Amino acid sequence: MDVEAQETPLLQWKPDDYGGVKVNLTEPMTTEDFVPKLRASLVDWRNQGKKGIWLKLADGLENLIAPAKAEGFKYHHAESDYLMLVSWLSDLHNTIPANASHRIGIAAFVLNSNREVLVVQEIGGPFDGTGVWKLPTGVIKEGEGVWAGAEREVEEETGIETTFKEVLAFRESHKSFSEKRKTDIMFLCELNMKPGTFEIKKEKAEIYAAKWMPIEEYVNQPWNQEKELFRFMANICLKRSQEMEYVGFSTVRTTTSTGRESYLYCNTDHANLLNATHGPASTSTPTSR
Amino acid sequence: MDVEAQETPLLQWKPDDYGGVKVNLTEPMTTEDFVPKLRASLVDWRNQGKKGIWLKLADGLENLIAPAKAEGFKYHHAESDYLMLVSWLSDLHNTIPANASHRIGIAAFVLNSNREVLVVQEIGGPFDGTGVWKLPTGVIKEGEGVWAGAEREVEEETGIETTFKEVLAFRESHKSFSEKRKTDIMFLCELNMKPGTFEIKKEKAEIYAAKWMPIEEYVNQPWNQEKELFRFMANICLKRSQEMEYVGFSTVRTTTSTGRESYLYCNTDHANLLNATHGPASTSTPTSR
Repeated sequence: MDVEAQETPLLQWKPDDYGGVKVNLTEPMTTEDFVPKLRASLVDWRNQGKKGIWLKLADGLENLIAPAKAEGFKYHHAESDYLMLVSWLSDLHNTIPANASHRIGIAAFVLNSNREVLVVQEIGGPFDGTGVWKLPTGVIKEGEGVWAGAEREVEEETGIETTFKEVLAFRESHKSFSEKRKTDIMFLCELNMKPGTFEIKKEKAEIYAAKWMPIEEYVNQPWNQEKELFRFMANICLKRSQEMEYVGFSTVRTTTSTGRESYLYCNTDHANLLNATHGPASTSTPTSR
Repeated sequence: MDVEAQETPLLQWKPDDYGGVKVNLTEPMTTEDFVPKLRASLVDWRNQGKKGIWLKLADGLENLIAPAKAEGFKYHHAESDYLMLVSWLSDLHNTIPANASHRIGIAAFVLNSNREVLVVQEIGGPFDGTGVWKLPTGVIKEGEGVWAGAEREVEEETGIETTFKEVLAFRESHKSFSEKRKTDIMFLCELNMKPGTFEIKKEKAEIYAAKWMPIEEYVNQPWNQEKELFRFMANICLKRSQEMEYVGFSTVRTTTSTGRESYLYCNTDHANLLNATHGPASTSTPTSR
């Protein structure tokens, strides 16, 4: 280590999993303190052959944003409590991973024993004022599974407790949000009512009303007939209600190679085989019928 | 309008689709100019009953971040060229839509007529140094469909041109990236080789090697047998190669209710019926086999 490098204190950092550098600043720091440390650190990282540099600035460190950008950092992403900047110190192909690009939603198909489907009318959004009765829908939260989010949304909107059964279909809708750059994927899920929870309790502020509606009446609403995507999805629900053959994807609980819980969604007949071999899942996790 | 409100100039804004306010600042502005305008605008928006206020600051307007946060704004998201802040002016339930929460990846299963599967060895990542031959994988780009991303990744990594056939399965992996808050969903896709593109041309810098490997040899690699999730997915590929019944999801091209192109992924038998009724898709779009 040469004398000059020792003279300027460096920013504290940790290696990331891909040979890069993570700097996580949480305490207030003046620009005068920050800039020389950042410059010296960049020299040091280059000398070490580091390429990707992550700079995480907690709430309250807005004074460091402009100086960091002046040294070549760009925004990567932000959450309510921090801003992440990134710099790529190499001429090689930039392998900084992409930011989150998608939002995942669900539409929940719940049928009772009278062949009635659980439907709602929404306040706000494209359905407000149309009179259309639609399936409960919602957005999957961060860290939540598709199956779990579907169960949660149905209960929040209608009070009905359900168990996830199958993904029947999904659709992509591009340029959908965040300055029309991001994509929505919506999973059409079938759920089973839990015994003894027939009574609807409209719970969410965004819902005008919720009720059980005969499936044919639901499918035959003009909205569901005139709009092709809605017609396709309504007809998949109808097919399921008629006990005709339509096989979707069910869940098999497993773990990733690093040991984290993970769900595989695959053809229901196949999932049933895997779940049977695999031993019964715990009661808190979805199983196929 | 009272006299006082007229005295302070307001920020320019547009209504969003949900009754909120969008402010899009792109030109340099001093803090002294910005703060009184923002304060007067907030009073005006409150008087108008506005709730959700979006403030988009282009690259170069870092000086306005701290003043905006002092007036109650929080980070919503960031892209390389802008930062989006948001403020909710109401005591009612905050209905500001969530930021993107997921990243979508694909693993591509391509089988040739000799029952060999297209496999690669990756530089970097968890497979580097393991000797494992794996399916080509990649991350779906912003605005790109799952089917299109799968075709692109296979060509980039191996030079083989393919046509999307089916989603065979997908898995969720939570706390996966961006400070372990976000979720990866990976779609296992089957693709058909286009005629006359048998020859592998290793193209991407992140790939050591690519080759055709007999499917049983692929499936029987220790990695694919010892790790449950990989074993499940490898066995789905094996089942497909054996012409045993395994039905996934194919695409049907349609439009959303607002007229944007959209793909519905549903049970392949059903998709075939819909595509037959629907008329042939154009050659640039995927069709089921």
